[in-house]
Amino acid sequence: TVNGQALWQDLVTTAAFGGTEKGGVCRLALTDEDRQVRAWFEQTCTALGCTVTYDSMGNQFARRPGTQDGLPPIMMGSHLDTQVTGGRFDGILGVLGGIAVLRALHDAGVTTRHALEVVNWTNEEGARFTPPMLASGVFGGAFTEEFAGSRADGAGITLRQELERGGFVGTEPCGQHPAAAYFELHIEQGPVLEAEDRTIGVVTGVQGMRWYEVVVRGRSAHAGTTPMPMRKDALLAAARMIEQVNAVALAHAPEGLSTIGIITALPASSNVVPREVRFTVDLRNPSESVLQTMEEDFLQRMQACALENDVQVTVTPTWNSPAVHFDPRCIASVKESTEELGYSMRNIVSGAGHDAVYVSRVVPTAMIFVPCLHGISHNEAESATPEDVTAGSNVLLNAVLKADYL
Amino acid sequence: TVNGQALWQDLVTTAAFGGTEKGGVCRLALTDEDRQVRAWFEQTCTALGCTVTYDSMGNQFARRPGTQDGLPPIMMGSHLDTQVTGGRFDGILGVLGGIAVLRALHDAGVTTRHALEVVNWTNEEGARFTPPMLASGVFGGAFTEEFAGSRADGAGITLRQELERGGFVGTEPCGQHPAAAYFELHIEQGPVLEAEDRTIGVVTGVQGMRWYEVVVRGRSAHAGTTPMPMRKDALLAAARMIEQVNAVALAHAPEGLSTIGIITALPASSNVVPREVRFTVDLRNPSESVLQTMEEDFLQRMQACALENDVQVTVTPTWNSPAVHFDPRCIASVKESTEELGYSMRNIVSGAGHDAVYVSRVVPTAMIFVPCLHGISHNEAESATPEDVTAGSNVLLNAVLKADYL
Ligand SMILES: NC(=O)NCCC(=O)O
Ligand SMILES: NC(=O)NCCC(=O)O
Repeated sequence: TVNGQALWQDLVTTAAFGGTEKGGVCRLALTDEDRQVRAWFEQTCTALGCTVTYDSMGNQFARRPGTQDGLPPIMMGSHLDTQVTGGRFDGILGVLGGIAVLRALHDAGVTTRHALEVVNWTNEEGARFTPPMLASGVFGGAFTEEFAGSRADGAGITLRQELERGGFVGTEPCGQHPAAAYFELHIEQGPVLEAEDRTIGVVTGVQGMRWYEVVVRGRSAHAGTTPMPMRKDALLAAARMIEQVNAVALAHAPEGLSTIGIITALPASSNVVPREVRFTVDLRNPSESVLQTMEEDFLQRMQACALENDVQVTVTPTWNSPAVHFDPRCIASVKESTEELGYSMRNIVSGAGHDAVYVSRVVPTAMIFVPCLHGISHNEAESATPEDVTAGSNVLLNAVLKADYL
Repeated sequence: TVNGQALWQDLVTTAAFGGTEKGGVCRLALTDEDRQVRAWFEQTCTALGCTVTYDSMGNQFARRPGTQDGLPPIMMGSHLDTQVTGGRFDGILGVLGGIAVLRALHDAGVTTRHALEVVNWTNEEGARFTPPMLASGVFGGAFTEEFAGSRADGAGITLRQELERGGFVGTEPCGQHPAAAYFELHIEQGPVLEAEDRTIGVVTGVQGMRWYEVVVRGRSAHAGTTPMPMRKDALLAAARMIEQVNAVALAHAPEGLSTIGIITALPASSNVVPREVRFTVDLRNPSESVLQTMEEDFLQRMQACALENDVQVTVTPTWNSPAVHFDPRCIASVKESTEELGYSMRNIVSGAGHDAVYVSRVVPTAMIFVPCLHGISHNEAESATPEDVTAGSNVLLNAVLKADYL
């Protein structure tokens, strides 16, 4: 089993890189805070006898050699970047859990057959550079490196520029990295495990998710002189569309989800009726076919709403991550390890996207979930217990050892 | 009568300072574009025999001496700043109309009893520094100079800093400037004159207007894992509030107006349910007592909406400009001049705020409106005809001459 105290200490140490007043973390991908935690990762893994390298997308690989040179490595990992007002567990737990596994083997003097690698995938959150899971997406062949590198943040700085600034561009082309298996430990980020009082979620797959940008065009007009019936108010129309986007999820309850996270109105002056409003839409469902129905429903509602409010609307798909089913043998390794360790568990479909989504396209993959307080995530109040994160890392360790003999 | 061609040429010349591709103007207060038009104003008025001075708020006064030294000046004017996507007439017409009057007298070799002054009031729009009519507000005693100077734009730069950067801080304290009368020529910015085919609006007053900032607080949550019923979505609640703000105006149709011009949501990430939304509200009515009822209705609806949606709401009043009734003698001067010149006309209450609102607190004031195309303003498509702007300037000239003998 892993050293739970050392793991918790690592969680405390790393929460300081971009730590916020409210106890959360703001460590956007490839910012100075992210560079700090990347340096910490490299030092820590090197001290455990690993070699740390980068691929061309800045993904960090800490490699602990195995006894049989010809075998591809078994990978563990997740991401070190966070949301703007993110928590101290989302992502980083999967990396620190991997380090906990390395430490357990190091302390016990055990060497596996396969080399083991702990991976930090660049820009998972999509908070700085959209879409999420960008570098694991290149690894899994979902995005080209050109597309990923050209993604720009709000200030117009590209991911490629930030990779170069950080010195994170390795010689290995991203994706040309054979591996025997990939295990990702993560907090659930939802309420299911806590509600059912289970310690481990055996993640069988990830729901489908689609993103859109909606642009509503009305006509700017003077707030003091334009009679209400003469207005083409892009914001009033957008408000009605927001209600309709919500209705799309409710029409597919309880599993259908819809979220509008970003909204802007132009020209953004208190006494001008907005001429243009832009907002993002995030639709999710575990079933691809239901998600397809949700999309059609959504598009129809937007058109109807535009017509009723005498405005123009355009809806552009910006991301589509189909529902994923993980590798049966990897899932079995997780399940059996959990049983052997005696933790309570249940099968679960992930509501959040994870690097495992794209890695699973090229490497046999599974995930391990542990509960988080009230299911709250993407929030500074995100919390998890030392017992649960240790349990998750123990499952990770045992799943890796099982995979080592598959 | 004024030289209509020279006036139109001035409108064309000045539209280039901050001119946009779409034929509008972006000349925010005290930006480099505004500095250019201010320099043009100074040169043009100096060439017409005027002395140009500033007061401590950067208001520009171009003075043409009269024959009787002891008499306070008669003022004409408006503002040279614009909205972000503003037009070529809003504000500047009142200044160029004043210059047209100076030019007519200059060309005719006439000197009035009172000195005449054309004034450019700093930051009327409120687009860069809120609230609107900031420097004329200091002139009229509505705001202190400290308050006005401390107002900051979106980048945190204060009005005071920008006045100093431009060298616009004069020695005369703002407001210590006695005047016999003030006439402001402006486009109507609304559809009434055009619809009734009248050339001149004799403005008897300005409706009341109140501004608020609304902050809605929910809880940020993960878009992929948080079941719809567990969310406290600040943006969904805000969308419902936007509908209610619209309903406040409709409940007081046809005169009641409500507008939401600015909205922001935090943390502004596509896969995070917003925890906080801020938006502005602008309520207007010609009757102070109806406006008061609208305010109460609005506050009640916000509270009810917050309760229903399980979010917190705070509403902060940010500006209150009570309904204004202009000076009967100044109104009469405008009306009689219009009659004598044979233009069609009607009395009208201004829907938009103007510098005349605050100047009228300390100087007998009236305004002259001319039609604008489709009533469109605060929009790059804003338009007015050479005939109408010349007619308005002729009324301005004759009203000033009448006031000169009152
Ligand atoms: N785990 C996680 O929060 N990933 C971000 C991608 C998503 O929106 O689900
Ligand atoms: N005239 C004008 O557009 N002024 C701005 C103040 C207002 O919002 O009415």
